[in-house]
Amino acid sequence: MDGLGGLPRQSDRLTELEAAKTPNLDRLAAEGECGLHQPIGSGITPGSGPSHLALFGYDPIKYDVGRGVLSALGIGFDLKPDDIAARGNFCTVDDNGTVTDRRAGRIGTDKNKELCEELGKIELSGTELFIDTVSEHRFLFVLRGKGLGDRVNDTDPQETGRRPLKAEGEDDASRKTAALVEEFLKRAGDILNDHHPANMVLMRGFSKHPDWPTVPDVYGFKAAAIANYPMYRGVSKLVGMNVLEVEYGIDKEFEALEANWNDYDFFYLHVKKTDSHGEDGDFEAKVSVIEETDRHLSLIDKLKPDVILVTGDHSTPSEMKYHSWHPVPVLIWSKFVRPDGAKTFGERECLKGALGVRFPATDLMPLVMANSHRLEKYGA
Amino acid sequence: MDGLGGLPRQSDRLTELEAAKTPNLDRLAAEGECGLHQPIGSGITPGSGPSHLALFGYDPIKYDVGRGVLSALGIGFDLKPDDIAARGNFCTVDDNGTVTDRRAGRIGTDKNKELCEELGKIELSGTELFIDTVSEHRFLFVLRGKGLGDRVNDTDPQETGRRPLKAEGEDDASRKTAALVEEFLKRAGDILNDHHPANMVLMRGFSKHPDWPTVPDVYGFKAAAIANYPMYRGVSKLVGMNVLEVEYGIDKEFEALEANWNDYDFFYLHVKKTDSHGEDGDFEAKVSVIEETDRHLSLIDKLKPDVILVTGDHSTPSEMKYHSWHPVPVLIWSKFVRPDGAKTFGERECLKGALGVRFPATDLMPLVMANSHRLEKYGA
Repeated sequence: MDGLGGLPRQSDRLTELEAAKTPNLDRLAAEGECGLHQPIGSGITPGSGPSHLALFGYDPIKYDVGRGVLSALGIGFDLKPDDIAARGNFCTVDDNGTVTDRRAGRIGTDKNKELCEELGKIELSGTELFIDTVSEHRFLFVLRGKGLGDRVNDTDPQETGRRPLKAEGEDDASRKTAALVEEFLKRAGDILNDHHPANMVLMRGFSKHPDWPTVPDVYGFKAAAIANYPMYRGVSKLVGMNVLEVEYGIDKEFEALEANWNDYDFFYLHVKKTDSHGEDGDFEAKVSVIEETDRHLSLIDKLKPDVILVTGDHSTPSEMKYHSWHPVPVLIWSKFVRPDGAKTFGERECLKGALGVRFPATDLMPLVMANSHRLEKYGA
Repeated sequence: MDGLGGLPRQSDRLTELEAAKTPNLDRLAAEGECGLHQPIGSGITPGSGPSHLALFGYDPIKYDVGRGVLSALGIGFDLKPDDIAARGNFCTVDDNGTVTDRRAGRIGTDKNKELCEELGKIELSGTELFIDTVSEHRFLFVLRGKGLGDRVNDTDPQETGRRPLKAEGEDDASRKTAALVEEFLKRAGDILNDHHPANMVLMRGFSKHPDWPTVPDVYGFKAAAIANYPMYRGVSKLVGMNVLEVEYGIDKEFEALEANWNDYDFFYLHVKKTDSHGEDGDFEAKVSVIEETDRHLSLIDKLKPDVILVTGDHSTPSEMKYHSWHPVPVLIWSKFVRPDGAKTFGERECLKGALGVRFPATDLMPLVMANSHRLEKYGA
């Protein structure tokens, strides 16, 4: 559950997870081992990419992937090894070029498609350009050419009231990329001039496809990802999971889990709306997504998994309306866990858990592997 | 509070911190997050230099500073990049040259000044020598010359009943230093011969001024140190804090805090006597310093800080009369902490805290930064 961790609301000092009625999660917590993990490190507020990599067992400092690559993978774009990908956002600028809305009022996906078609017609010297809709204000930007580097800064100033930043490269190959990006931005500005609020674009996360060990390589199993949103589909594909086609909705995700149950060793199932409602500051809505997810967990009795791990990729307290650094509640259930002091699933109960507090999220996959008897003894 | 952590006394099995009446600390602990940190590592008894560096976020194994440099900074000596500094102790030796008191009965500072003046007259070939009083039996030794190295062992044998060790260098430049040190020690012995109990000197911590990132560089804020004792003033200056002029006394320190409140983003306030009384084995006196400090914390209601962190640099249990390896109680208070199980501030209650137990002290500054919203999100 994305952004699962929270902070207590004023009225009764309960967090979202503590306030939610979660009989299934509470049973798993009581029978299993609980704790609180840190995705990146102490005090560090994670982005979703690195925090998911950490959950999958990849040290998120060492395995650094750009948002552009994640966006490409998320929409199934066939990224070539030399391609430069970036995540684009339609945004609103005023007459002085100052950004007034970094998301162009979250324009609809249909409008996005119309604008991407226009932008895709831009011709850049000696380079192939791909502009693809992701969703709402988000699009994918890919340059395919010779000798392009990805060490280019974001043009997104990260706050309103400032002008977009100039793209600059850190080395010759990246300066070549930056020049093409600037050329693109100039043409894009001309084309979008009449399309307020989507009258400019911001670019983030210039990157190339990394060459990393995959989940099947590392863990020796066949893994499926059940996730609706591009970012999470992207990171799953990046680490070598098979990303299942699934319709939007938690119910559809659990249907996909059941339908594919016998074809995989491992499933990653992603619930997005816990984070979205946290970011909107909607405590009650976040509670209700947790409760909805909990109801679907009755499926466990039918499927009889060997190991269940429930957690979030980071905390998104409704009180803060943003990702936060707070440790994330986690439970592991299997036949081989020890009883601990956690009797329900919540931030405070997890403090009494056998997994400990503020441990690295990268510890989790080895524990999943151990609980499914997939690791051999180390040494004689 | 220096050496804050303790061990239970026999009578009622309470530690110094548990026995102390601390209504302000208890409220902060109940509202905040508690835990127990390890300054250096499991089972490692810290010196004050490395443990302070750890609290300030510097890995104390990587950022290794000599006691000589700390002593120089502590008394405001203007150390040049090529200078070699060492901490000297006046000591007592018997007729065989065996050390009988490593601190020369803690001679008075006036006597120290008189002797330092004599030692400062020693002339060493091709090298400038500085000998400055620190306090009691402690003095600063600085060599200023060309091509001197600092990889020279301590001459302090660390226990009585042994002779001082010979200074030896690990490389050519350091062998040059060692030869000068041996020359100095010979002359010093002659000069001090008639000054029993201060009839010899021991040298520790040969070192050069390190070139490290500073607190303003790393954390991006303006930091002030409020500390009376040279060692702590030195380490604060070393990491780039502005060391405030302050008279001796906890009351004077809190007055300085209030007087300078609006001029800095961050304050480090050091209470020394908790450690001193611990080293003297005076349980009651250590309790009373904790209580005195607690009373001053009512100032918080007036100053309204965003984040408060209370801890020690290490444990100094009165029962042991020495620094110890025991984890150190810590509390963090801000508007963004989660409720945990610790209801008062003490070693046992901290075991129920959300920060966890035996975590690295270097985690603390990132948590302070996060709680004051001074860190950006990591990754997209």
